[in-house]
Order: sequence, then structure tokens, then C-alpha cells
Amino acid sequence: MKLTILGCYAATPRTFTNPTSQVLEIKNRLFLIDCGEGTQVQLRKNKIRFSKINHIFISHLHGDHFFGLVGLVSTFTLLNRASDLHIYGPKGIKEIIMLQLKLSNSWTNYGLFFHELESRESETIYEDDKVIVKTIPLKHRVYTNGFLFQEKIGARKLNLNAVQNFEIDKCYFQKIKNGSDITQDDGTIINNEVLSFDPLPAMSYAFCSDTVYNESIVPIIKNVDILYHESTFLQTEETLAKKTLHSTAKEAATIAALASVKQLILGHYSTRYESIEKFREEAKTIFKDVLLADDGKNFEF
Amino acid sequence: MKLTILGCYAATPRTFTNPTSQVLEIKNRLFLIDCGEGTQVQLRKNKIRFSKINHIFISHLHGDHFFGLVGLVSTFTLLNRASDLHIYGPKGIKEIIMLQLKLSNSWTNYGLFFHELESRESETIYEDDKVIVKTIPLKHRVYTNGFLFQEKIGARKLNLNAVQNFEIDKCYFQKIKNGSDITQDDGTIINNEVLSFDPLPAMSYAFCSDTVYNESIVPIIKNVDILYHESTFLQTEETLAKKTLHSTAKEAATIAALASVKQLILGHYSTRYESIEKFREEAKTIFKDVLLADDGKNFEF
Repeated sequence: MKLTILGCYAATPRTFTNPTSQVLEIKNRLFLIDCGEGTQVQLRKNKIRFSKINHIFISHLHGDHFFGLVGLVSTFTLLNRASDLHIYGPKGIKEIIMLQLKLSNSWTNYGLFFHELESRESETIYEDDKVIVKTIPLKHRVYTNGFLFQEKIGARKLNLNAVQNFEIDKCYFQKIKNGSDITQDDGTIINNEVLSFDPLPAMSYAFCSDTVYNESIVPIIKNVDILYHESTFLQTEETLAKKTLHSTAKEAATIAALASVKQLILGHYSTRYESIEKFREEAKTIFKDVLLADDGKNFEF
Repeated sequence: MKLTILGCYAATPRTFTNPTSQVLEIKNRLFLIDCGEGTQVQLRKNKIRFSKINHIFISHLHGDHFFGLVGLVSTFTLLNRASDLHIYGPKGIKEIIMLQLKLSNSWTNYGLFFHELESRESETIYEDDKVIVKTIPLKHRVYTNGFLFQEKIGARKLNLNAVQNFEIDKCYFQKIKNGSDITQDDGTIINNEVLSFDPLPAMSYAFCSDTVYNESIVPIIKNVDILYHESTFLQTEETLAKKTLHSTAKEAATIAALASVKQLILGHYSTRYESIEKFREEAKTIFKDVLLADDGKNFEF
């Protein structure tokens, strides 16, 4: 699992900071999460192939999370994209994009599919053989979802020495990977555990931005490997955080601790602070393993 | 008159090039012309004060000319803008912006006025005591206007030596600037030409992008000081220019020559060319005084 931060600052794009957007790569699939203004340039700078993006998830309809979407959709057309594009986001996202394509008389030459979200409960919105994506209902000034990306448990790994020793034919390998025992010609049964190893553990990533401190998300994100939680403010601005329905670094860390996640990544920093290091310091008073997002930064898990 | 090029490349924003946007300053008024994605960052980079922009002109509803507008409108709100903002552009621009403000529940805290354009004839769309702005109907794939900015002739300049010699009281100075003769106490009339100089000549700037080669604009832009004319292509791509309703550098120069403008600025270059110098070379075979726009470049006239 690889996470590339394209932008992680709140509010307006600036000369050296970008609004929210990130790319999550899971088993060779690329998921774009949020798409603030300038995302397509950030994709270029970070050398991410446009053609590999087939699924875009938009958390909410505040500009710093989606103003770059219509430009990206249009650029895909100019780049002669052929494959389908799926956009998951709050109800209204389709109208916004389609109105602009209509008025510019610039329809896409590829399939554009909108999956509009309205539910206030967590729901599965994407699933394939490797990955499942669920919403995390958040509390913000407009309808907002975080997204939980879960790898599926893969096949068991073949124990090459064991299958050689037992002289097992290749045609049984897939069966073994799927967990079956093998019956030999003399009737002896070889247990699967002898012939294979456990699959790699399935990783999970939860993206939670923007949201006020909200313990009701804890059961949904319980035990995830990586939690990205917004920390627009420090505790010195606690009142402002409550008022604007954002979180502080300490609150993000509290959610991480309650959910027993393995690692916490902070982001969506207000640009009022000179250094983002203070966010880590504040969060570390509550939760041990804190990482700081920053534009252009990569995390591999 | 000062022109700052924020972006002058066709199609998509890239790491080092920006879509169309420029700021024209006339007598301390700032006019923003087009607003491609990333314009607000370009404004910051070029140290242009956001609060001085009160009038935005959008040529047409192709994304590379307006996708940055909603972000700029929203940023004005975050910056606690108080003064009115006027947006001039094709019918539909209001619906695009208002839909996004509605769905993000982020109304502006300042007056936002749309002046939607539909006419196929040149019309005056802005006028104050110093400047007049008219549309230049262009031919492109969607409804498109260029914009003609004309300074008004200012007041006459006081001849300080002469008014001192004739011991003329200060209270007559405005009258002299307005062109009146002065009658002295003994009845002698002093002609205005003795007491004042001609005002500075009024400058004019015509912005023409995007458009196919179109001689019908010549009467509207006749004798302007500065013509910015798109040159998406070179003559080697003449057929493509015709097909996409864009112009070549040679065609832009031909329009400049026919309209007897003083200087031609080229821009809206396709990113297929390695160097923009070839645009100047091609245009110079037709018209002498050719300048090249480039992102971040300033022109003072």
C-alpha cells in the first residue's frame, strides 16, 4: 500500500501548499481521494500516470476538496482517455460536473460514471477481488464522508519446499493456495498448513477529512493500520475547531487511540501556523505513532 | 497601462505553464481577463493584491479560461472581501458559480454581480470615468468574446510655468484642466492652449482569444495600441487551426496588419511546440512589432 500526498493544507491553494488530494495505491490499483484546485498539476509533479486513475472519491463539496475535479475530467478527454472513470461523492457532484461539460460543449470521450452518496450510515461503495471501500460518515458543515480502504485477504502462499518433497503436481497448486488439503494416490491426506503459509495480512487505510471530533466513527475504523485524520487546528484554537466543525491534533490523536489504529497521519493544516511540527508534538501527548502529511510526501506500508 | 500575463498556454495546466489569465492595470484599476485553473496561485506569485480586483472578464466557457473562477470567488470570501465583485461572461457563468456555492453552502460575504453576455454584436459592457470596455465578438467552438479596453482621454495638463507667470489663482486650475479659457480682471482672455498641455494620448488594449482567423473583428480593433491575439498553432498546423477554430501566428499577424495596430502580443500557445520563439518568427514575416506573452511576464505601455 502506497500513499502519495498531493495536497494536505486547508482552505485556499497557495504558492507552495495545495488543498486536499491524495493517491492511494493498493495492489496496483490507484484511488484518487479528493481533488482540490491544482490536483492535475500535482499529479504531474509526482509523476503519477493519469491513465491509471479509474476511481475518484470526493469526501464533501467544499471547494478545497473538489474544485480541481472538473479540470481533471476535462484533461482526461484532451489526453484521449479511453477507459471508464468512476466518481464517488455527495449528491450534487454529477450536476456540477455535467453542467460545466454541457456549457463548454466538451463531453468526455470516455465513460463517466457518478456514484452519488446520500446515506448517513457506513456503506460499501466499491468492491473488486482485491479491495473493498466503505464510507465513514463524518460530521462537518456539509454532508461529508471519509473512506475506509480494506485489502482483501489474498491467497495462501505455496510452501515450495513442501510441495517438492511431497512431489505434488502443479495442477494442485491453485487448490492449495485456496486452502484445500491434498489427498495423495495412496489415500494419505496432507493438511493444507503443511503445504502453504498464511497469506500476507490485509492492510487497511482510513481517510477522515473534514470532521469535527466524532467518536461515533471509532467502531468503523477500529484497528485500521493507517488513519489519516484531519487536524486543521491545534488545541489553542479548540473553540474555533468546534465552531467550524474541524478537529485539533489532540482530538485526532484521541480518535486514533480509541480506535487502536497502528499509525496516525495528520493533515489538513490551517495555514495560520508557521510549522507543522507542532501538530505532531501535540498529537504525541496522546498517541505514539504519529506521522505528518506534507505535499509531495510518500508513505509505504 | 500595465499587462501581467498569469497564464498563456492552451489546454491543460502543467508544471511550468498555466492556462489563460491576465491582469490589465489601467489608471490604478485592475481588470482580470479569463481565469484558468491555478489563477489564484499565479496572482499570489505575481504579487497582485486580490482586493484590487473588482472586475473579471471571461471570454468563453472552455475550461482553460474559467475553471479557476469558482476557486477565486471562494478565496475572496475566505479573505473577508467586503467590496463588490463584477463578473462579465457568457450566459451560463452565473449558474456554474452559484450551483457550486449553493452545494458547498458557502455563499459570498460580499456582493457578487454577474453580467451575462449573449449579444453577437460588439457592445459596451463596462464604463467609468477613466475606462470603457467593449466586447469583440469572436468565432470559436462556443460563444466567445474578446474585450477592448479603451482609456478615456484624460484632463489637460496644467502648464505650471504659464499659470505662475499669469498669477492665476488655484481655484481656476480645474477649469483650465477641463479646457476653458481664462478671463482676467482687466478683461483680457488667455487661451487655454497657453495655460495647459494636451492630455496624454488614450491607450487601448484588445484581447482576442480564442478565435479562428476572422477579419470581421478588424473594424472593432482598428488602430488599437496593443492587440493580444491567440496563436495556438504555427502555419504547419494550419488545417488543425481551421478545424479547431484557432489561429496560427501568421494569421494573428495578418489581423494585426489589417487593423494597423501598434504592437501585437502572441499567446495561447499549444504545448506541442518546444520553443515559443517560432511564433514570433512566423508572425514577423507579416507584421513588424511582435511580442511574445509568457507566464509571469509584464508589459508596460
